[in-house]
Amino acid sequence: MHTVIGIFDSGVGGLTVWRHVSEAAPSADLWYLADQANVPYGPRPLEEVRAIVTGVTDRLVVMGATTVVMACHTASAAALEEMRLRHPSVTFVGLEPAIKPAAEWSETGRVGVLATSTTLDGPLYARVVERYAGDVDVITRPAPELVTMVEAGETDPEVVRDAVIPLVDAGIDALVLGCTHFGFLADEIAAIAGPAVRVIDPAPAVAAQVLRVADLDGSGTRNFETTGDAVTFVEQLERLLR
Amino acid sequence: MHTVIGIFDSGVGGLTVWRHVSEAAPSADLWYLADQANVPYGPRPLEEVRAIVTGVTDRLVVMGATTVVMACHTASAAALEEMRLRHPSVTFVGLEPAIKPAAEWSETGRVGVLATSTTLDGPLYARVVERYAGDVDVITRPAPELVTMVEAGETDPEVVRDAVIPLVDAGIDALVLGCTHFGFLADEIAAIAGPAVRVIDPAPAVAAQVLRVADLDGSGTRNFETTGDAVTFVEQLERLLR
Repeated sequence: MHTVIGIFDSGVGGLTVWRHVSEAAPSADLWYLADQANVPYGPRPLEEVRAIVTGVTDRLVVMGATTVVMACHTASAAALEEMRLRHPSVTFVGLEPAIKPAAEWSETGRVGVLATSTTLDGPLYARVVERYAGDVDVITRPAPELVTMVEAGETDPEVVRDAVIPLVDAGIDALVLGCTHFGFLADEIAAIAGPAVRVIDPAPAVAAQVLRVADLDGSGTRNFETTGDAVTFVEQLERLLR
Repeated sequence: MHTVIGIFDSGVGGLTVWRHVSEAAPSADLWYLADQANVPYGPRPLEEVRAIVTGVTDRLVVMGATTVVMACHTASAAALEEMRLRHPSVTFVGLEPAIKPAAEWSETGRVGVLATSTTLDGPLYARVVERYAGDVDVITRPAPELVTMVEAGETDPEVVRDAVIPLVDAGIDALVLGCTHFGFLADEIAAIAGPAVRVIDPAPAVAAQVLRVADLDGSGTRNFETTGDAVTFVEQLERLLR
């Protein structure tokens, strides 16, 4: 049977994960689906995101995906467990804010999380904090405006600063990127946070997990799809994968 | 059932067709597959191209394509009829050199065809000439080097000139682009051929045929896949679709 690793996100954020998987598994068949007809997911109610994610996941499964990577924290928060129940023969890899490495790293006892509200309000996040934060304080900040910025490809340092500085002022020494889009702003965020703060991008760890669970046997095809405007999408791909 | 119009080529040449289909059918689901692991098809023996095309076509059908556009003259010459027999429930649209409009247009009684040797040597081409050329002389010129040029994105005017001038010198007044890659050189070819020669790009006519035969009901997704290097492919897409 032909196997495909389907990777999806609301937009281009999941390409931070795609990049690592593509490098680590050159012979795997990868399918990247950007649901740009519905980007951003963040500001939508959980129930709406769940319905959208169900449609996207079904589409990947119909198209032959044997492993589905929800390269989107909001989608994972809304529907990861539901999709596992819905497609028991498919292997799912989801994203949750990387509280564990942040809490292990922290010496100040304070870590920050940049994410969307839907991610921070969901049960997946609550479970991760309960399991891994221990006695470390977790300070959260919703930053949906950074998603829009990455999609548009125009970085406004002031907007990044407004999202990051309150966390830094709160005394964090680890900052979790709780949205895959933010990986494309990692350098800017690190520059603003300063050398005392470790910025944690989940993409390499997720790619490693994909390598562990997925069937990597394939012919090395790379597939890109958008539910939005194709020409804009191709411009984004070129800029972000360059 | 989910319907998909699968469009394939050895590389980026079929994007000349994709572009017209995409504009004419914005709500259709389009899948573009570039078989860049095997580009160029032109210099390969017919039997080898047939085996390659069988694999690519099967892949599109497995992935749900209900219409397959062979946006490649060489592939159509090698395997269009075979694929129709192999997948009777799939609608196929193939490309053959546009001798008919060229012969109808010509007043000098001489038309030129730029194509690959595989296209010019195949039975499909012989049939088209027999059916449509009438008493018009058809002067052919294999130009596989132009395929490589379009894939690389570097136009060498001397190479284009070497391909076109012998046809012009032979007195043609219509020049058929018998390879979809050449659509991306149409302006250069027309400039060299001069105002007395009509350059015929088959892409608009093929797109119109797709609209007639295909199920256009979809959600407007645009899918790009390569069997070759993904980052190079994305660069090509950005350059060519811009």
